[in-house]
This record gives sequence, C-alpha cells and structure tokens, in this order.
Amino acid sequence: MSSEECIDFFFKPESIALIGASPNPEKLSHTILESLRKMKFKGKIYPVNPGYREIEGLKCYSTPGEIENKIDIAIFAVPAKAVLEVLRGHVENIKGAIIVSSGFRETGLGGKKMEDELKALLKEKGIRAMGPNCLGIYDTVSNVDTFFIEREKIERPVRDGVSVLTQSGSFAAMIMDELANEGAGIARVVSYGNKVDVDESDCLEFLARDEATKAVALYIESVANGRRFLEVASSCAKKKPIVALKVGKREPGARAASSHTGAISGMYEAYEAAFRKTGIIEAASYEELKDACKVLNRYSPVEGKRVLIITDGGGIGISIADACEEAGLRVPELSETAVKKLKEKLPAFASVRNPVDLTGSVRNEHYVAALQETPAEEYDLAIVSLLWGPPLLTGGVAGKIRDFADSCGKPILISSPGGKFSRELASAFTKTGMPVFFTPESAVRAAAVLCGGKK
Amino acid sequence: MSSEECIDFFFKPESIALIGASPNPEKLSHTILESLRKMKFKGKIYPVNPGYREIEGLKCYSTPGEIENKIDIAIFAVPAKAVLEVLRGHVENIKGAIIVSSGFRETGLGGKKMEDELKALLKEKGIRAMGPNCLGIYDTVSNVDTFFIEREKIERPVRDGVSVLTQSGSFAAMIMDELANEGAGIARVVSYGNKVDVDESDCLEFLARDEATKAVALYIESVANGRRFLEVASSCAKKKPIVALKVGKREPGARAASSHTGAISGMYEAYEAAFRKTGIIEAASYEELKDACKVLNRYSPVEGKRVLIITDGGGIGISIADACEEAGLRVPELSETAVKKLKEKLPAFASVRNPVDLTGSVRNEHYVAALQETPAEEYDLAIVSLLWGPPLLTGGVAGKIRDFADSCGKPILISSPGGKFSRELASAFTKTGMPVFFTPESAVRAAAVLCGGKK
Repeated sequence: MSSEECIDFFFKPESIALIGASPNPEKLSHTILESLRKMKFKGKIYPVNPGYREIEGLKCYSTPGEIENKIDIAIFAVPAKAVLEVLRGHVENIKGAIIVSSGFRETGLGGKKMEDELKALLKEKGIRAMGPNCLGIYDTVSNVDTFFIEREKIERPVRDGVSVLTQSGSFAAMIMDELANEGAGIARVVSYGNKVDVDESDCLEFLARDEATKAVALYIESVANGRRFLEVASSCAKKKPIVALKVGKREPGARAASSHTGAISGMYEAYEAAFRKTGIIEAASYEELKDACKVLNRYSPVEGKRVLIITDGGGIGISIADACEEAGLRVPELSETAVKKLKEKLPAFASVRNPVDLTGSVRNEHYVAALQETPAEEYDLAIVSLLWGPPLLTGGVAGKIRDFADSCGKPILISSPGGKFSRELASAFTKTGMPVFFTPESAVRAAAVLCGGKK
Repeated sequence: MSSEECIDFFFKPESIALIGASPNPEKLSHTILESLRKMKFKGKIYPVNPGYREIEGLKCYSTPGEIENKIDIAIFAVPAKAVLEVLRGHVENIKGAIIVSSGFRETGLGGKKMEDELKALLKEKGIRAMGPNCLGIYDTVSNVDTFFIEREKIERPVRDGVSVLTQSGSFAAMIMDELANEGAGIARVVSYGNKVDVDESDCLEFLARDEATKAVALYIESVANGRRFLEVASSCAKKKPIVALKVGKREPGARAASSHTGAISGMYEAYEAAFRKTGIIEAASYEELKDACKVLNRYSPVEGKRVLIITDGGGIGISIADACEEAGLRVPELSETAVKKLKEKLPAFASVRNPVDLTGSVRNEHYVAALQETPAEEYDLAIVSLLWGPPLLTGGVAGKIRDFADSCGKPILISSPGGKFSRELASAFTKTGMPVFFTPESAVRAAAVLCGGKK
C-alpha cells in the first residue's frame, strides 16, 4: 500500500477524538486534552468515554461510532486491552489512530500477541495508525500535540523548520525540552513507538514533500523495511537535508534497543552504509543530533570544510580550532590580502590570523569588521565565538552579525559559552533566528553537520 | 630555585596591596577591590594610588613602599609601563605580585622587551610573580579573588575540591561561570598568563601538597620547563588525580596558541607521551575537562571500565550505552543471579538488563532497589539517568541515591537531560553534593575520566 494519500491527514487533521478522555487531571488523557487546547488546535475535539456526558465543556461520546462526523485522528489513551475492544466496535469513521498506550510488543510474548491482533484489526477496519507505545505528534504547523507529558515538565519548542522522527518517546520529549530551553524551535515531531503500521519511511515520505519541513532529524533504533527506507530516504535527501542518529550501535546498546521497543536493531555497519548511500548525514551522538537541529533550522549544508573562527577569547578560539581539526574540518590560514585588509580595519590589539582574536578590548563593530574584511572565498562557514566579559561588547552586536549573515549567504554559527549572563546576552542572537551554541565543541558539531557529518 | 617555600603565600595571604586602586567603578581595579570584599577576604587590603587619600573607606597609599607592613600579594592593575615604574621604586616589602596588566610579550617585540625588563626587575627585587596578562587567583579556601570581571558577568563557584590551573584567562572565566551555573564548585583557580615567573609546575607543586585540593584540572597551551613539569606532575599524580587538556594540538590551533600568549606550543605527541608517563588523565575536549571537574569534586578514579546504567527512558539508556562503548568503556551483561534478584525486587514493567530500564512507570524506590540489588562486584561505576516525566518520580529520590552512593563506595554519576523542570529537580542531587550531567554524552565523558581518560 502506498502511503502517499494515506498519512498526510495526520499532519492537517480537522477533527480529533480522544478515546479515554477524562476530567481527572491525573489521567494522561487529561494532559492530552490540555495540550491540544494550549496549542490552540483549530479543528473539532471529541472526547470519548462512556462514563461522562461532558468533559471540560465538550460533549463526551460513549464510543467513536457515536460521533456523526469523520475522525481524522483518534488518540487512544486507554489500556492495551481497551484499545482492542474499542477497535472491535464501530470505528468506520476513524481515518487514523495514535495509540499512546503501552502494554504491547515491548512487554513480551503476551503483548506481542495483542499487537498482532491490533495490527489485524487496524487492517480490517482500514485505519492507519501510529504507535502503540508512543507519544504521537507534536506539530507547530497543524497545532496538534498528543504528548501526554505536561508543558510544565517538557517545554514545547516554537515553530521552526526541522522535523524530528523517532521511535523513542523519551528521546522526543528530551530533545523538545532541550531545544525549547535553548531558544530553538521545531516544525513537527513524530514519536511512532512500536510502529504497528506507520513507520519512519511513511513519515519521511510525507516530510519530503512537506513545505513546512526544511530538514529532517531521525533517531533510529531500527528500520522496519530496509529497501523502502533506502528509496524514500534517497528521494527525500535530494530535496532537503536529513541527519540521523543510529542508537544501539553495538552490543550492549543493541541489546537494550532490542528490549526497548521489541525490535531487533541490525548491524550498525549496515546502517552506516545506508546513510552514505542515501545521502543522510550521520550524527555521531545525541549531542550532535541536537546541535544539528539547531543549525539546520537556519542553514543548509555547504560544499567545503573551511571554517573561519572569530573570537574575543584566545583560549576559546584555540579550543574551537582544535575541535574543528578533530572533526575533520579545516581552519585555513588567511591569505596575505585578507591579513592586510583585516589589519587596516582592526585595532592593533587584535590577532589577525584564523582564529581571529579580537581580545577583551573588543567592541561590537570589530566583530562586524572582521567578518566584512575576510574575503568570502577564503571560508565556507564561520564560527563567531563571544565571551561577554568585554565592557564594550553588547547584545547590539547580534543584529549586525545577523545582517552580515543575511547578505553574505554563508552560515554564521554563534558560540557563546558561559552561564546566566552569557545566555541572556546570547538570546539577542536567538531572537534574530541565529543558532547559538554553548560550548566550543557544540558549535563545531553543528559545523561538522553542515559539512557533511562524521569523518 | 625551589619554589617550595616561595609560592605558598599566594594561597594564604594576610595582606593584599592593590596597585592602581580607583574609586571609578569602570576601572578593573575597582572590580578587583569589590571581588575581594565580596569574597570576605579576612586579611588587610591596601589600596595604592598617588591620586587618592582614601578609596571605599580604606586608607590609600601613594606607593607600595609607604605601606608599613609586608605585602603578601601586590595586585598590579596598571598599564604595562606603570608596572615597571612601580617596580623600580621601593617595593622591598612585596613578597608576591599578580600582574593582571596586558601589553607585554603577547603584543610583539616591544612588549617582549618590556617583559624581559619585568623579569629582571622581579628577580632583582626578590619578588615572585604571576602573570602578566592574566586574571590571577580565584580561591575559595583563602577567600582571594583577583579576577577583574564582575560577578554579574562571571559567576563564582562555591567551595569544592578541584583546583584549576590555566594560562588562559578567558578559559578560567568560562569554566568558572559554567561550573557555577551547573551548581558545581571549585577549590582554587590560577590564571598565570605569560608566566614571567610562576608557571604550571610551581602551582602544581603547591597543589600537590595542598590539603584543600582533591584533584587538579590543567588547561595547557604550552609547558615552560618540560623536565621540571614531568617531575612535579609525576609526584603530584601519585597523590591526587590530575586531568589535563592540551589545546593548540595541531596546526592551526597551535598557530593561534602561539600568538595568544606568545609561547610556542610544542608538538602534541610530546604532550601525549608526557601525560601517559606522569599518570595525567588526558581530557579529549573542553567539555570533557569541565565534566572532569564536576566528577572529580566528588569521586576518585576507579580500576576497571564496567559501567552499570540505570534509567527510566529506554532511548536515553541506549544512547548512554553507545557513548560508553565509543569512549572505550564497557556495559557488561548482568549475571543470572543479578537478573534474578532484580526481577524479584522490581515491577514486571522494568527491563532487567544493563541498561536497566525502569520505564515511565518508575517510582523513587525502584531506582534505589535497582542499585541495591545489582551485585557491587559486577560494575566499577554507575550512571543513573533520570527523565523527570514520570509522576511518581520526585526530587526525594536524590537523598536515597546519595545514601546508597555513600555506603557502596562506588561512583554514582547522575544524568538528567532536559530543560528548566529537569534542572530544577536535578538540583536535589547537586544539593547532596552529587555531580549532575545534562546530556547522555557528558555523563559518559565524566565516567571515562574516572576510568583513565582517552582510549
């Protein structure tokens, strides 16, 4: 079955039914209802629970069949057994299901049997499904949020360009929380858990043609259908960057991955080869995948590996240069012409090499001058690292660097190490939409992703 | 000259003179005076400036010679030329100098000449000196703080066991700020800049016999006297762990390091060999050095490389296991006995392998049970990773895990990824003195340091 027409509705639903809705704030379903409302979901919401006539001001239905209209997404937030029971009833008006319930394949043989039955029921009723054992969809484009963890616990990122696909719900929650905390956004997140039906290839196929998605980040424990994945990923990678983290690379990670969603995570080497073949950029670590999301929200990969480093902290500049070399990037010496131009425009205290060190006497305009005077043909991307100690360095520098980035067309990555004060000043960059990284190595990880990933 | 008796006074001064003291809040010297007072420095403070009779309620002297008593530390916060002028005068009562001023060797030939003169003058007058071009000392033991960057910009860490030695002032400021921001402490920090006199070996010699220092973190651009460093480091490493980051490893990092403090940073391979020979643990990156500081504040290195992983997020557990394998650590399978014991004490939803996955249904006591039931002889250290989504997981778990860590004697490292909510809950661990790491990889970097560092 081609999923072409089949799964798009998950990302632009007009109606959502919440099976197992409850007025009890301790129930997961209550959190989901709250999440949908906080997202200002524009479509219809139908609570379903035979025990209530009304929940939170919404009419409550006994069964999905009782709802007169079609249901784009039915969120199942009931125990595993109840999922099967509901599906045995009248569910002809349900197009898609998101089954957040656990208690299936991941729990062993009994669960595996129930999941087989689930699969058969879904097929029989013609329902496409995500899950079970998942968090579902967080979508800043369609304003859908089926995550059953409160916003007080897991922050929701604002809208941006990267979409995330993941089996692991805990991974989805973690990266959303951290991106939001670092001021970064996201387009859509899908946590598809045990993949009883919809899998990474289905989602990737949709994201490939999704205008709201600028790049895709994949967290992979295992791939269901290798051949289809290769096709879909190759085709998607031609249109937009895909970055992937394979986890469970070797024993014992692989062992744990197998128990976690009941899947068998294949040999890592096969995945490496597949990534190379399809043009997927491989992330070396969780940290790199997160850094990739931040940088791909704004920039596209570049040809070349030459990094220009501009800093006001000599030690940081050297650490960044070291990390670049380590990651297979180059920090080329500047040409004589460039050095001459820089010397003319920068004060004598500046060290005019690559890294350019503007020292603690720096002013905002020196950062801009260093960028403007370095000939564009001498580097492929720049890391601009700011320590905020210098009294004449202010948040005002952000707008100016952003303007330069817009006009020069090359990725400019901001590195701003430090604590509270630094983060506050660095938020001036975040506000302009520029990605900010908090350690020398994280900026370099992002640069490495733009330059094609793992050596 | 043996520095044995010579530099200890820098770390227990009874009197500090501030050359170039000023009531003008925009002057560096003003920030230093404020820093000393905020540290509640118990000794005498003598402002020196011929332009004032009194500064901030303290009697101000025209010259250091005018001060009747001996001066343990004279902080020079005046331009390079003025440093030389003052030293040409009556300075017989000065034992040690911290010359924060820049404008010496790092600026080129003219500066080099001035630094040569500085060196000669210091020798002639019998004054030991740190700097120039440095931040000096931040010391939670002696309550000294000569850093001229305000606390609002660079947070000061609380007292703890690791001391940091660095040429780079920006590095010193950055790591202090970040450690403080992550709730971690420090013993003493020395930023010695151009090393006209006191160098890493002098400081290391002191720290080796310093009871307040539990471990040493070194940031090295270059080492002045290789033979002496080998001796001192070997002797220190026998008493307490030393972890070192060599920056300027290769071109072009090396090129930048050379311009930064005017030193020539030797071949990286020589440093690697020296680290191995002396028993120094090498940190692979800035991030690893920071993680090392956090973990060495509480734990000592272990024999063995077997890591027990306990988590409530399957995906995170796998990521940690992957990162362990990547770092040369082992995540051994648990014995049948261990699995049996764990199965008895843990609920059926838990996955009883290594990583142990307690899932989103976890309660505080399950973490404790997982630690208690795993036989101590099956691992060398444990990484306990908590996602705080589960409603029955609370900050109360921290005290219980801390109690277990105290009784079992093995390092227990806490990993708590996520944003604001997670950091707040994780602070329950920080308060008990346990180190907390915010990404899967950072906990593993710390574990790798305890297991001996780079593969």
